[in-house]
Amino acid sequence: MASDGVEVSNKQVIFKDYVTGFPKESDMELRTSTAKLKLPQGSTGLVVKNLYLSCDPYLRGHMTKHDRPSYVQSFNPGQTVTGYGVAKVLESGDPKFKPGDLVWGPTGWEEYSVITATESLFKIHHTDVPLSYYTGLLGMAGLTAYAGFFEFCSPKKGETIYISAASGAVGQLVGQFAKLTGCYVVGSAGSKKKVDLLKNKFGFDEAFNYKDEPDLDAALRRYFPDGIDIYFENVGGKMLDAVLPNMRLKGRIAVCGMISQYNLEKPEGIHNLMSLIVKQVRMEGFLVSSYCHLYGKFLETVLPAIKEGKITYVEDVVEGLENAPAALIGLFAGRNVGKQVVVVSRE
Amino acid sequence: MASDGVEVSNKQVIFKDYVTGFPKESDMELRTSTAKLKLPQGSTGLVVKNLYLSCDPYLRGHMTKHDRPSYVQSFNPGQTVTGYGVAKVLESGDPKFKPGDLVWGPTGWEEYSVITATESLFKIHHTDVPLSYYTGLLGMAGLTAYAGFFEFCSPKKGETIYISAASGAVGQLVGQFAKLTGCYVVGSAGSKKKVDLLKNKFGFDEAFNYKDEPDLDAALRRYFPDGIDIYFENVGGKMLDAVLPNMRLKGRIAVCGMISQYNLEKPEGIHNLMSLIVKQVRMEGFLVSSYCHLYGKFLETVLPAIKEGKITYVEDVVEGLENAPAALIGLFAGRNVGKQVVVVSRE
Repeated sequence: MASDGVEVSNKQVIFKDYVTGFPKESDMELRTSTAKLKLPQGSTGLVVKNLYLSCDPYLRGHMTKHDRPSYVQSFNPGQTVTGYGVAKVLESGDPKFKPGDLVWGPTGWEEYSVITATESLFKIHHTDVPLSYYTGLLGMAGLTAYAGFFEFCSPKKGETIYISAASGAVGQLVGQFAKLTGCYVVGSAGSKKKVDLLKNKFGFDEAFNYKDEPDLDAALRRYFPDGIDIYFENVGGKMLDAVLPNMRLKGRIAVCGMISQYNLEKPEGIHNLMSLIVKQVRMEGFLVSSYCHLYGKFLETVLPAIKEGKITYVEDVVEGLENAPAALIGLFAGRNVGKQVVVVSRE
Repeated sequence: MASDGVEVSNKQVIFKDYVTGFPKESDMELRTSTAKLKLPQGSTGLVVKNLYLSCDPYLRGHMTKHDRPSYVQSFNPGQTVTGYGVAKVLESGDPKFKPGDLVWGPTGWEEYSVITATESLFKIHHTDVPLSYYTGLLGMAGLTAYAGFFEFCSPKKGETIYISAASGAVGQLVGQFAKLTGCYVVGSAGSKKKVDLLKNKFGFDEAFNYKDEPDLDAALRRYFPDGIDIYFENVGGKMLDAVLPNMRLKGRIAVCGMISQYNLEKPEGIHNLMSLIVKQVRMEGFLVSSYCHLYGKFLETVLPAIKEGKITYVEDVVEGLENAPAALIGLFAGRNVGKQVVVVSRE
């Protein structure tokens, strides 16, 4: 227990300066400072030791200097990168937490953090699953997939669903939820290995490598001769434009992300929005932050499904905080296979 | 009564051939044929005399050769143009209608028509309002405005709404519904005369001429410093792209039409769809054909409001079937001020 206020060395990932275009590892730097493992007098926060960090595409938004308010605030150059992670409580000024508790939620990309916004943390009660799952399957990505699919897509048995970036942290789960619902599920990804995962590990009905398809519209027509009822949108750009004319009457597009667009100075133009009228399609953007109240219900659904082997999850685990910048950058090149996790410490 | 099978001269507007780009008057031609005002033995259709015809932007869709199924089927070259209109029944093989009844619904651009799809017709029971209103305010445009605003936009008192093409057949009504709901209402249109109508006749809070605004984003920021809760989309293209970043959290975009795009060989690209995620916006296309069951409720709301002067309506009335092609083409140049109606005959 480290509540005696010892000073420790604290490795940190620092955000250097605003990014335009593709981020590079050199947009972040590693720094080692010292941290006192003690809360200031009267603090209601926590001192935590970070165990696992989550690499998520939305972090790219923090690296841009925004001229309008955004749901992702711009980082300040020189600050520690922040994101979702799993941590162990070392000291607590909040009666809801005690030393030794495991939590997941917003934390810093560093070995030790002081968290003041404790209301954003979830206490981890179930430890008979891999702890790292709370960075993804049992964390934000899982809740995103759950809320996005069940709350937004109004899925019905027998409907057809297409998922882009389907082997990613969210996509792999959406596909499995859709299969459990009795949908026909097709996913796309950017390598043969990922396509194999989709078909053989996650049980998608079909999957394809979008890089092998010069005509995305033709590919979609092939997999969906009668059209798409639900599109779970993770990619944006050309993919979205190809999907729109393939939507069925009263189709739904849950806009979860548009990773192909995050690094462009000007997003690509989408030309086929008239399909929204022709097919009476609903397209809706959503943020998981509006669905935290569903977390309990989500766990009740997902934990038993994991234990019964009905839901499986693939992580791409990188060891060591020093490798976190490369892991994050890798997301935008599609280098990760499955949910990208960084291990800071295993205990 | 003309049920004795007399042969009459029948002026018709004929669709000549598929159109790309802007339609021209010469894409249609006037022909005079003869019509026998008698139904074939056993027919369950109607012989009608057409009184008023509705010029609607969606008609442009019929003039395109579609390579995919669309809600507007391609016209066949050489056929009579068809659209919505008000007509008087001359002869009936359908027990729900009798000679002398007034109806509105799909009919031909000609003096006399035989209508077989009688299930698409609405009988007109209220004739203490101008009959031409059934081409617009009390017809498809009115129901479009009603269903689009009340069913899709989930409007709440105090919310802000922006309407493009606001002085058109649908826009002028949406604005008045929104004012009656207690919203802050801003509309745009393409001339000073139309802007004056919006402010002085329809009671919009603000209105502007989009042609006077080189920076649409700046204009929208000026009228909506705190953002837009509801966008009623009639225009598409650059206007939509300017609106997206100005939407408020949980905003709604009812996609009714995209008139700026109908004559382009390739629709303009929309770059700002990421705002759907950032602001958790819902964008949904709709067709009035799915809302015909609301027509009775709609009339119950609107008829008293017209009589009490709470809702007003501006029509741009052209006399004579021979002027119908020019009137239709005029829509795409914004020449009409208010709902474009063609009078074939006043009785």
